[in-house]
Amino acid sequence: MIIFLKPHLTLDKEKEFRKFLVDRNVNVIPVRRRDQTLLVVAGRFGELAKREVENHHYVEKILETDKPYKLAGMSFNKSGTKIKLPKGTVIGNKHIVIMAGPCSVETKEQIMTSAKEVKDSGSQILRGGAFKPRTGPYDFQGLGKIGLHFLREAADRMNLSVITEVLDVRDIEMIEKYTDIFQVGTRNMQNYPLLKELGHSRKPVLLKRGMWATYKELLLAAEYILLGGNENVILCERGIRTHVPETRFTLDLNAVAYLKHETHLPVIVDPSHGTGRANMVRAMSKAAIAAGADGLLIEAHTNPLKSVSDADQAISMQELKKLVKEVKRVAEAVDRK
Amino acid sequence: MIIFLKPHLTLDKEKEFRKFLVDRNVNVIPVRRRDQTLLVVAGRFGELAKREVENHHYVEKILETDKPYKLAGMSFNKSGTKIKLPKGTVIGNKHIVIMAGPCSVETKEQIMTSAKEVKDSGSQILRGGAFKPRTGPYDFQGLGKIGLHFLREAADRMNLSVITEVLDVRDIEMIEKYTDIFQVGTRNMQNYPLLKELGHSRKPVLLKRGMWATYKELLLAAEYILLGGNENVILCERGIRTHVPETRFTLDLNAVAYLKHETHLPVIVDPSHGTGRANMVRAMSKAAIAAGADGLLIEAHTNPLKSVSDADQAISMQELKKLVKEVKRVAEAVDRK
Amino acid sequence: MIIFLKPHLTLDKEKEFRKFLVDRNVNVIPVRRRDQTLLVVAGRFGELAKREVENHHYVEKILETDKPYKLAGMSFNKSGTKIKLPKGTVIGNKHIVIMAGPCSVETKEQIMTSAKEVKDSGSQILRGGAFKPRTGPYDFQGLGKIGLHFLREAADRMNLSVITEVLDVRDIEMIEKYTDIFQVGTRNMQNYPLLKELGHSRKPVLLKRGMWATYKELLLAAEYILLGGNENVILCERGIRTHVPETRFTLDLNAVAYLKHETHLPVIVDPSHGTGRANMVRAMSKAAIAAGADGLLIEAHTNPLKSVSDADQAISMQELKKLVKEVKRVAEAVDRK
Amino acid sequence: MIIFLKPHLTLDKEKEFRKFLVDRNVNVIPVRRRDQTLLVVAGRFGELAKREVENHHYVEKILETDKPYKLAGMSFNKSGTKIKLPKGTVIGNKHIVIMAGPCSVETKEQIMTSAKEVKDSGSQILRGGAFKPRTGPYDFQGLGKIGLHFLREAADRMNLSVITEVLDVRDIEMIEKYTDIFQVGTRNMQNYPLLKELGHSRKPVLLKRGMWATYKELLLAAEYILLGGNENVILCERGIRTHVPETRFTLDLNAVAYLKHETHLPVIVDPSHGTGRANMVRAMSKAAIAAGADGLLIEAHTNPLKSVSDADQAISMQELKKLVKEVKRVAEAVDRK
Repeated sequence: MIIFLKPHLTLDKEKEFRKFLVDRNVNVIPVRRRDQTLLVVAGRFGELAKREVENHHYVEKILETDKPYKLAGMSFNKSGTKIKLPKGTVIGNKHIVIMAGPCSVETKEQIMTSAKEVKDSGSQILRGGAFKPRTGPYDFQGLGKIGLHFLREAADRMNLSVITEVLDVRDIEMIEKYTDIFQVGTRNMQNYPLLKELGHSRKPVLLKRGMWATYKELLLAAEYILLGGNENVILCERGIRTHVPETRFTLDLNAVAYLKHETHLPVIVDPSHGTGRANMVRAMSKAAIAAGADGLLIEAHTNPLKSVSDADQAISMQELKKLVKEVKRVAEAVDRK
Repeated sequence: MIIFLKPHLTLDKEKEFRKFLVDRNVNVIPVRRRDQTLLVVAGRFGELAKREVENHHYVEKILETDKPYKLAGMSFNKSGTKIKLPKGTVIGNKHIVIMAGPCSVETKEQIMTSAKEVKDSGSQILRGGAFKPRTGPYDFQGLGKIGLHFLREAADRMNLSVITEVLDVRDIEMIEKYTDIFQVGTRNMQNYPLLKELGHSRKPVLLKRGMWATYKELLLAAEYILLGGNENVILCERGIRTHVPETRFTLDLNAVAYLKHETHLPVIVDPSHGTGRANMVRAMSKAAIAAGADGLLIEAHTNPLKSVSDADQAISMQELKKLVKEVKRVAEAVDRK
Repeated sequence: MIIFLKPHLTLDKEKEFRKFLVDRNVNVIPVRRRDQTLLVVAGRFGELAKREVENHHYVEKILETDKPYKLAGMSFNKSGTKIKLPKGTVIGNKHIVIMAGPCSVETKEQIMTSAKEVKDSGSQILRGGAFKPRTGPYDFQGLGKIGLHFLREAADRMNLSVITEVLDVRDIEMIEKYTDIFQVGTRNMQNYPLLKELGHSRKPVLLKRGMWATYKELLLAAEYILLGGNENVILCERGIRTHVPETRFTLDLNAVAYLKHETHLPVIVDPSHGTGRANMVRAMSKAAIAAGADGLLIEAHTNPLKSVSDADQAISMQELKKLVKEVKRVAEAVDRK
Repeated sequence: MIIFLKPHLTLDKEKEFRKFLVDRNVNVIPVRRRDQTLLVVAGRFGELAKREVENHHYVEKILETDKPYKLAGMSFNKSGTKIKLPKGTVIGNKHIVIMAGPCSVETKEQIMTSAKEVKDSGSQILRGGAFKPRTGPYDFQGLGKIGLHFLREAADRMNLSVITEVLDVRDIEMIEKYTDIFQVGTRNMQNYPLLKELGHSRKPVLLKRGMWATYKELLLAAEYILLGGNENVILCERGIRTHVPETRFTLDLNAVAYLKHETHLPVIVDPSHGTGRANMVRAMSKAAIAAGADGLLIEAHTNPLKSVSDADQAISMQELKKLVKEVKRVAEAVDRK
């Protein structure tokens, strides 16, 4: 159950109310949102206590849910979460959102050129990794802070928003200065200290599904962030590990259809990792939107063959333009834009 | 390598030519198509012999391919295989094809009503199982031959084509009299005696991907049928076994995008088994078409809750109508109809 | 529920009793065993009818079970099924049983030499495929009937039993003349016509787990055979399809530990397919026995590098001898022989 | 390639040598071990430069390897890594090592009693989680620092070593004061900041395989730790995510057999998570040792049904004693103790 306290309730009154709950043996976890505090009751609740709480003058309303993900579940916000970025883009709205760019920020020039091309394609958000989670320690680990600097500059010049990955809980504060959206990679979907700290940020978090995770586990990982008070969580399907050897991962679009019934959070699809093959990205982008996704995360490179990481799956900027155009037609066919 | 003999070559001349090959130590497998025999060379071939063969006056052309699936591979027929059904429907064309109906033929009345509804929805082909492959021996095993009879009658009355499953190699001849398309279920994808016998039929075969199979294995299974001379193979993605517990199977639409590059055979998607949840079928149908599928295989029931098998995934006939309409809009957005 | 009729009850009396059941609206499936008929009740049963049946003078006893696999479940035969082969070997006993030999029967000489080596190693059963289920149609499909002939001759000369695969329901009668055990391969685990016909044989059937199958599905597949009256079913774990690329399959020894609690049928392990790597076969054979397996199915070749199929996983005959010795030590450590 | 500098070389000489390498365009990553520095060359190396390096008077030897995991690969240390714990236990030796205890430290009394029972069973290491990675944020997250305190006290009183999990890179220094072995859980196998920091510790690290990971990915994760100079890495197979619903995970003992050929690092098996069922733990423990594992990690509880986490898979202390005894017999059958 979730107890919504009245907006702008003073901390003193909140304390008073929590004492009231403690007296009734009810334990809660407080969730501090912009101008309202929610109290999540993890355990069960007697019928009597419930009515008492519901009628309390500090309480706006209560919400009952039998889902394990109380804040992420659909009943919490049936109209759907809409995430507004500084440059006016909204994720979770009628408009499909395209995030595109190289796997890694490689050089200043590369990201500058990429930003221009990404803008020209009609995409709204520039992606690029400065801290890279690489399978092996001898692979390129990213440019680090200077990469962030290049990325921000490139995006600003083109009036794009920025998404970039955070790997280390100790880097959140620093990365927050550069990015508009934090990306949590598939390997970190259950990195709980990272999720908890991101819950205390107010910047949006794109949470990639673990390549092993069930839908429930993804939603519970999102719950860790939401519980910190950060309302701006975006889910991302990016492919799961299966027995299929011909693709890098198996893009699970069932996840999109399922999540759209189960949660109010926006759902984005990454067909680049989800296929691992550039020549499949366009088809699967269209499929993702048709399945109901709110946007796409695409690896596009000014020179795919020279990409220092993930070269097989990066599409060219020409291909990106084609993709955006074709995706828009499919979006309209499913009453999106 | 494939050697295309000249069309309508007499058997005597064919024999003569095969002797010519044997003299050069070349072993071939003959594929007898409607009016032409192909000779597939499984092994390697010397440069000299190749030129000799190519110039032989009984030979129309030769086709080299390094794929293990020689007849199923894209290079065999770059314009794509189009499969014509008696009632005028073509599979593999610009037009999306919808096959719909109940999991099992249950009663005459049920299949008659179903056929009417399927027709009304704008679908072209009636599905319905008379021989059912059931996980347990105590489950309903299908009506058998009488079910086929009902199915044919219902389809004919509505001018629909018929697709139904064949389980037993000994039933092929009998079922052939009733059906327009043989369905080979997921469990039988590598039932080689069945595939070989279906290769000798001239009726189309819809081959469902094994829930464990790679794309290569699916194409090699199709090759078994094609090698028998039956050109009319339709591939069907219907979901694979993964770790995801929330859906019955994981519908792998990557398969569609991949196969469309790799083979000339039509590709159909079964979102009913691929999700196992009626409320996801519509979204995944649209996704399938956006990914490039040539059609859909849908479980629809006049009363889904009373379906004797697969009740959770059957959609209602009202839902089917909605689905067909919505799918058409997506089809147009990807330049299909 | 299972109704055990009194042994040697006449058919007339059986008919009379079934009429008695029909009068009470109870539907049964008769299972004709050597000298006793069982009647399996698939559906529910009223308390009253149950007592009436239990006390009927044609009834020996009734057995209640809430498992979907009524004949395969542990409660059916708590002391464990023991399968006796003509040459005295018993499967399911204290003694571990080793089935070894080449993937395919290649030549008479090869199988003769193999048989001698297999015997020398201390193994009891000779394996060898004459009908091979090959992924692609251009691969070696086995020697067919002449291969069976060679296999039988080789085994008889060395006083070994024979196990060989049956692919086609139309071959059962013929193969039955040559083999002591039918092998049903992984691809045919849910080939129901094949399972049903094997249920009418009285020769033992080794049923390999489908590479996609759950434990429940394996047990239900066994139930199809048992329901035909054939009591001699052996289960075989041979590896499942997973995301792991370094091995051909993932040998799932959990299956052994689980099945040993859940069924009375003997469980055999095939570490050759389950790893796909000759240098892992010995270790995994020991692990299988330690987990509780009743025996092993091993691919061993007189010249592994020249094996026409599955060369990577075949061990040499020297390695087989070492394996048998080491496995025996482990067997003793878990109170087997 | 790995360059082994002479032991106890001064930092000045090391610098001089690295300048020598830079002059030859060779980039290295230094690995500082107890009394010797290694220089890992990630890229290629000319034949000439190689000989020059090999003959340099600061160089002890060079080691060439074509594996991506240079330090974790077998060629680095063919005799196998032996990890010595303060209380005399050695991991990677002839003696099998048993780590046992509750999933979570729950109360002081519980862990005290557990320690006594664990000692009595013949196990050498006490496990217990104080920081728990829980799928959902409403689940018990562990006692934290006070839990570590109880755990250490309990282990010391019984002369046992301690293993406990580290989740947060910021906790390493604190946990290091209490534990003898850091455990990295399955979800953190590719948490690179955590792995890198643990590389700078000198305490052993037990690295659990990601439930999605390949063997190569596990070895590359270990390489991250080894590259920091920490030689004491223990690998742990704990089950992978597969389609099998009857067990919590699929314990992949193939991993043990494979890793024993591929790496010099000790390999431990966790049959508790790998099965998720208490009644399978004993059988799979024996199987793990027969496959070649160096030890076991077992969840055992003084009252399994009351365990606050993972109750289904915890065995009782009586069962643990039986397990240790039986495992020893299998260990002897494979020439271990």
